[in-house]
Formats: sequence, C-alpha cells, structure tokens
Amino acid sequence: MAEEMMSLSIDDVRAMLAARPAPEGPRDVAAMRDTMATTTDAMRPHEAVAITETSLGGVRGLHFKPEAAKPGRALLYFHGGGYVIGSPGTHKGLTSHIAEAMGAEAWSMDYRMAPEAPFPAAIEDGVVAYRALLESGVSPDSVVIAGDSAGGGTAVATAIKARDEGLPAAAGLALLSPWVNLACDGWSYSARAEADPMIEQEGIEWMAATYLAGADAAEPLASPIHADLSGLPAMLIQVGPDEMLLSDSITLAERAGAAQVEVTLEIWPNMIHVFQAFYPFLPDARRAVARIGDWSAARTD
Amino acid sequence: MAEEMMSLSIDDVRAMLAARPAPEGPRDVAAMRDTMATTTDAMRPHEAVAITETSLGGVRGLHFKPEAAKPGRALLYFHGGGYVIGSPGTHKGLTSHIAEAMGAEAWSMDYRMAPEAPFPAAIEDGVVAYRALLESGVSPDSVVIAGDSAGGGTAVATAIKARDEGLPAAAGLALLSPWVNLACDGWSYSARAEADPMIEQEGIEWMAATYLAGADAAEPLASPIHADLSGLPAMLIQVGPDEMLLSDSITLAERAGAAQVEVTLEIWPNMIHVFQAFYPFLPDARRAVARIGDWSAARTD
Repeated sequence: MAEEMMSLSIDDVRAMLAARPAPEGPRDVAAMRDTMATTTDAMRPHEAVAITETSLGGVRGLHFKPEAAKPGRALLYFHGGGYVIGSPGTHKGLTSHIAEAMGAEAWSMDYRMAPEAPFPAAIEDGVVAYRALLESGVSPDSVVIAGDSAGGGTAVATAIKARDEGLPAAAGLALLSPWVNLACDGWSYSARAEADPMIEQEGIEWMAATYLAGADAAEPLASPIHADLSGLPAMLIQVGPDEMLLSDSITLAERAGAAQVEVTLEIWPNMIHVFQAFYPFLPDARRAVARIGDWSAARTD
Repeated sequence: MAEEMMSLSIDDVRAMLAARPAPEGPRDVAAMRDTMATTTDAMRPHEAVAITETSLGGVRGLHFKPEAAKPGRALLYFHGGGYVIGSPGTHKGLTSHIAEAMGAEAWSMDYRMAPEAPFPAAIEDGVVAYRALLESGVSPDSVVIAGDSAGGGTAVATAIKARDEGLPAAAGLALLSPWVNLACDGWSYSARAEADPMIEQEGIEWMAATYLAGADAAEPLASPIHADLSGLPAMLIQVGPDEMLLSDSITLAERAGAAQVEVTLEIWPNMIHVFQAFYPFLPDARRAVARIGDWSAARTD
C-alpha cells in the first residue's frame, strides 16, 4: 500500500471516533446516510484501481479494476451499514484495497436497503448480482464473495440462497466482522458494549427491526447462524475482540465448521468493528486487508 | 514431502482405524502404550531430518534437526496420548514433518505421565524444558510451542505457567486438536461421539481421571479454557469437525481471542482428531502440516 499512509495506534483511532459529534434528535435515515458518506470520505481508494459505475443483473454498483488484476478473478462485495445506511461509495476505499490485495476485479453492489426495501430485498439483490456475474462468464471457482458487518451477513446469506437456487458455489467467503445474528443477543453484545466504539445496543436493535420489518430475526437468511450452512464456500472470518459482534463471528465459525465448511477464524487483538476500514491510519488494518487478499487469491488461483 | 506418499481419502483412513483390533479386558497402561508404539511405527519421519536423543533441564526427549533449519528457530513439541500414553518416539514422524515444514530444530519432550506422575507433573516438565531452551540461548521470539491433543493442552498450560513464572512469551502456540477441557463436557463430546473414530467418552474420562488423580478438572493448568489466557503467544488451532474435541478448540479460540490473544482457528472439513498424524496417507494432513510450518516460520522470522 501507499507509502504516505500513517501509522496510528488503535487508541488514536478510538480517540478519532470519540471526537465524532453525537447525533441529536430522533433517528433520521437520510442524515445518517449523509454522515456515513462524509465520515468515509477520508478513506481514499487505492491509486492503482480504476473505479467506474456498473450493474449486475440490474443491480447497480461500482466496479473496481486493479492494474494488476488477474483476468477472470472476481470479488463480489457487499458494504456494511446495518442494512439501512452505507453504499458502494462509502466503502470504495476499503473495497479498492481488498480488490488490489486480491488481484481481482471487484463488483460492489448497491443492494436495496431498509426502510425502503426491508428483508429479504438485500439478499435477493445479492443473488441476482451473483447469478449475473456467473452468466457474464466468470467461473464460480474464481469468485470470492465478501462483505463487512451487515454486508458480511449479506455475503453469507447470498451464498446460502444461491446454493438453494442451484447455483454453483463460489470459491470463498471473506467476512469482516459479519453481522449474522439479528436477534442481537450473543454474549459479546453485553460483554463488549463498553469496549465497542462503533455500535450500541439500541442502535443495532433499531437497525435490525428496521430491516426485518416484522420478519423473524431467526429467519436463516436474516441470521445465517440459524441456517443450514452445508455446501457453503470456504470462509475467512476476521473479527476484533473489542466489538459487540465478536460472538456473531465465533458462532458462525462454529456452525459453519460443524457443517463441514472449511473455516478460518481470525481474532485480531485490540481491534474493533470492521477495523480494516481504518487502513489509512492503522497498520493492523493494512495487514488484515493483505491477509484477505492473500487468502482470496489462493482460493481463486 | 516425499513423492512416494500415498493419497487416501478420509474414508480410507476411517476404514484403517475401524480395522484395529478392539482392546479386550481391563485397561492395561503398559499394553496401551505398546499398542500406540506399534500403530505409529508406520508413520515414517521426514528423511531430511536427523533425530537424536536429547534433554532440556533434565527432561529427556528427542531432538530433530532438519537439513534446512534456520539457525536459532525452535519448535518445542508435546506429544498427545491423554497424559497417559504416547512418547516423543510415537510422534517422531509427525514432529519431524512439522519441524521440516517450519524450518526449525525441534525438541519433543518425554514429559512425565499418569498414572506414575499425575497433574501437574507434565506441565512442570513443560516449563522446565522451555526455561532450559531459553537458557541455552534460543530467543523466545524464535520459539513456537506446539502439541497435539493432550500435548496441545500441555503446550497451552506450559505457556500459561511460563508467563506466571515471569518467563518471556514464545512467538507462537501451534495446537492440533488440543484437549483443553478435562471435564470432557463440551457440546461436541456427545454430538460428535458417533462421528469420532479415535475417542470415546468412557476412555477419555478415564484418561482425565487418571491424570487428575483427584485434582479438579477446572484447574486452569489442567483445563486451559478456565485459565487467564492474557499475554499468551499468538495461537494457531487446527481441528476437525468430526471429533469430540471440536468444542475444546472453539472454546479455547473464543476465550483466548477475548483475552486479546491473536487467534487463528482452522476447522478442516471431514477431518478427525489429530488428522495431521495421517500425513503418509492423507493429502489434507500434509496441507495442514505445511500450513503449521508456514504459520510458525512467519511468527519466528
């Protein structure tokens, strides 16, 4: 990655996060989306990656083309934001760096979100995009499906629904702090509430309720820890110990492994929710992105 | 690894295991030890590794010197066998291949076992050996402590006791299906009882009782899932889904990660307890050994 990147500690990152203005008044989805767009603007894309608008099967998104991409190798990416906020644009920095580290073209999908389009719209869009990617001629053996937070959940649920629809499995799932338990009741939701600078219980429950719009949180495509995970691609899961979603990752690893999925779970000391997004500042974030790239490239050789 | 190695499936390995004669009559420790020595005799050491007798701080063992070992890099190995059976000799094949894959000299310790020397004799010997290794001039940054099954538990407990005695931390812990819950009551003990061709509940409980000799199974050095794991070296844990000790590995990964230890947990589809020991027959075993070697080498560069 670029030489000019800074090396801050996780405590520096925490101080940055603590300095954010607290939102005032009732929740305003438009304002939340604007805030995310503003705060992610500092996350510059990789300079050797060309970014253009694209669509897959009618689902719009951004396309990333690293100069050194291996022809035919593909990353299908789903951004985080609790199924309510975020976009391929807010995550274009992180996505570009993962694509470059993997040496793959990437498609980051602007899947439908709540409240406009609740569960399972996001997952439907995920499968439409995956199907279109394969129909464009990309081999499933050359595809890694990835995502962070809610996008990690979308990635897993997309792989489940694709399997159920008879599509061939991708080569891998790369999951950054995936949100896969929409009941929000794993042990770390309370045990890590103080340590987590990114998520708070009321906020994540509001995201879950907004997305579910009355559906059961135990629906397998909403909370993949309750799904039959057999036949899914090999999974790389990265998570921090200082996040409320730690137990989501551990339970997913356990259930997937027990279902004969090849699982690699990495717990990165002192790291927080989707710490990889802090790659401009945080050396461990850059190492984690490099590791995702290496793992994904090895799965798609 | 050697070209002449065979490629059998895990089902072939299971058939081999099923063909073993069932022991008759009451448990006879001497006969169990002989049987393990006989059945492991087919596991040939790596041809480029010289094996000689050694000792560390008075604890005897075997020393492994790969032709391509990096000077100063060291593997401290503890064999499995439920703290009752096994020896550096029964595990010399596996140990030699891990040492070669890591590019490190290895010391495999003949730690005291039950019933002659119950808990915590094995752990005391582990720390004596580790201390002696450091006093011989090896840097802790160049040491990976490793072990399989009970030896994996010994490796973790040795690292805990070494920390408590003020010794510097090793660079890594490489754990193959570690036995770290001597209460033998994780969820997989029952859920994987039928799938596991290596362990049965009565046998492992007998091993635990023989080793504990009245000590509490919740003693942290007997069952490291109950220990304070903070400050331990980075851990690589490999486990199979088709073994009763699956939950030991997952719980250890969870507790270590939550204690800010760097954790990589790998669950290998269709694999069984200490599947790496089947390297002469099983391609996944060879891949897993190579992965342990790569991970350990990267930690000790």
